[in-house]
Amino acid sequence: MTVEGKHIAIVGAGLVGSGWAVVFARAGHDVRVYDPSEAVRRGVLSWAKSTLSSLHSAGLLDDPTGVLERIDIVDSMAGAVRGAAYIQESVFETVEAKSSVSLEIDRYLSAHAVVGSSSSGIPASRFTESCENRTRFLVAHPVNPPHLVPVVELVPAPWTDPLAIDRARQLMGEVGQVPVTLQREVDGFILNRLQGALLNEAFALYSEGYSSISDIDATVRAGLGLRWLFMGPFETIDLNAPSGIADYAARLGPMYHQMALSRRDPQPWSPETIKAAEAERRTLLPFDQLAQRREWRDHVLARLSAFKLTEGIP
Amino acid sequence: MTVEGKHIAIVGAGLVGSGWAVVFARAGHDVRVYDPSEAVRRGVLSWAKSTLSSLHSAGLLDDPTGVLERIDIVDSMAGAVRGAAYIQESVFETVEAKSSVSLEIDRYLSAHAVVGSSSSGIPASRFTESCENRTRFLVAHPVNPPHLVPVVELVPAPWTDPLAIDRARQLMGEVGQVPVTLQREVDGFILNRLQGALLNEAFALYSEGYSSISDIDATVRAGLGLRWLFMGPFETIDLNAPSGIADYAARLGPMYHQMALSRRDPQPWSPETIKAAEAERRTLLPFDQLAQRREWRDHVLARLSAFKLTEGIP
Repeated sequence: MTVEGKHIAIVGAGLVGSGWAVVFARAGHDVRVYDPSEAVRRGVLSWAKSTLSSLHSAGLLDDPTGVLERIDIVDSMAGAVRGAAYIQESVFETVEAKSSVSLEIDRYLSAHAVVGSSSSGIPASRFTESCENRTRFLVAHPVNPPHLVPVVELVPAPWTDPLAIDRARQLMGEVGQVPVTLQREVDGFILNRLQGALLNEAFALYSEGYSSISDIDATVRAGLGLRWLFMGPFETIDLNAPSGIADYAARLGPMYHQMALSRRDPQPWSPETIKAAEAERRTLLPFDQLAQRREWRDHVLARLSAFKLTEGIP
Repeated sequence: MTVEGKHIAIVGAGLVGSGWAVVFARAGHDVRVYDPSEAVRRGVLSWAKSTLSSLHSAGLLDDPTGVLERIDIVDSMAGAVRGAAYIQESVFETVEAKSSVSLEIDRYLSAHAVVGSSSSGIPASRFTESCENRTRFLVAHPVNPPHLVPVVELVPAPWTDPLAIDRARQLMGEVGQVPVTLQREVDGFILNRLQGALLNEAFALYSEGYSSISDIDATVRAGLGLRWLFMGPFETIDLNAPSGIADYAARLGPMYHQMALSRRDPQPWSPETIKAAEAERRTLLPFDQLAQRREWRDHVLARLSAFKLTEGIP
């Protein structure tokens, strides 16, 4: 995506939007951040400064000051969007909020500019239909925080120009994110569908009394997660049978299908199950330590990013 | 588990059994390895030597020679099992092979000794019923290779003494594995049920044309896998809503249930889907590079173990 002489616009500057500002600025882009709330706008630079300093400590960044200087806070939508090559929108996730901000972005959009929404669940077809430039709107769904978890799901609305997807994919790759492309909309996109499938099975095993919250977590943390972290599920099984993935499917496909049949009647997570899960988690991590543990999580994510960089794992 | 003056027996010395020998020996235990095949027995020490040398290079082991000296190859079942505190059985996975070897182990079992089978799918109830000491037989299912992936699933048969589970759990923890306990048998145990749930959804998304094998892998590798690696799925969601897991369940539980309902009619992985997946994988990794890529996988697993050790992640 050619962005020479152009900047990146961030619309909506909560935690997700601020993370995006860091992503683009650290890759060398000039970034203009707009949020309708003055209080939110005021907080962005101090958050970015402390975040950049953490990335620097983790060995992920050479020049935090230089990066910070590329982030400008502006006090109008027009000031952010006009002349931008790419706009990342991260406002509150309701159809109403997304629709109205999309129309406003649409008004100031340059020719060829592409707009990605951080929407984690609402597809672009539900909030971009009335935009004049709707062929250049799409979902670009990150995982929070985007400066530490690189995946971004690119999901077209039925009217999105494939070229807009291509350009967003190229830009995301250039700035060090890992773009994945969906061919069309589906509830939950890929990431939350995969997460949901695993969580539903995990909650079912727990509610049926097979094991504890703690041991189920350990099964992933000290088992499945190790290979998934650097290969993903398909490469994992491709390497796990002598002749590759088809060989694996022939050996184990019927077993996995049998297990799926036993969950033909999916149950919602029941209030009792949730209550018990919450109780076990609170013995493992008291409520007043949640915030501190989130800081630890982000610290480990930064260290893990550095590890993957060293090992050349994309 | 008190193993003073006693040794650990390894029965069946293919890749899994040999990995177990390394696990117990590096933790300081004397290990006696038996396999009915003389050719297999002959290969164990040279494999162990090269494996220990890799672990040493990765900074995971101080004294590879000392560890190797604790591994003895013996040429009879009696020689391995008599006087052992714990027996890890890893023979070919058929009911017939497991039944006959369990009876043979049973014959030489010391008082209080516990037998764990590496069975990845067959529950202990199907091959230990006729053993005199069946209350001390259970499944201890590792992920291959056990010296690099620490999880081990402990699964009782209906007649397994809870004390045998406790003792196996204690031993596994002491030798640096991560034991998880199931209260009773279930097809696929925990690990393969979770893996199967995610794989089934991944294959469904792929076969329905939503995305590529490569992008679905990237969604896990650069997204879900990062947090699962050090927290597991439950802690991940516990930290992902302001007030913890119950808060998360209230916000997102209904969405995940809705997704599960759309998979009410689980499909087997179809021959066409498998063929297409195989074709895409072979463009990403040609068949003749599978072996080399497995070496790379084990190299990264070793480096990742070192990383988790440094960060204090169990």
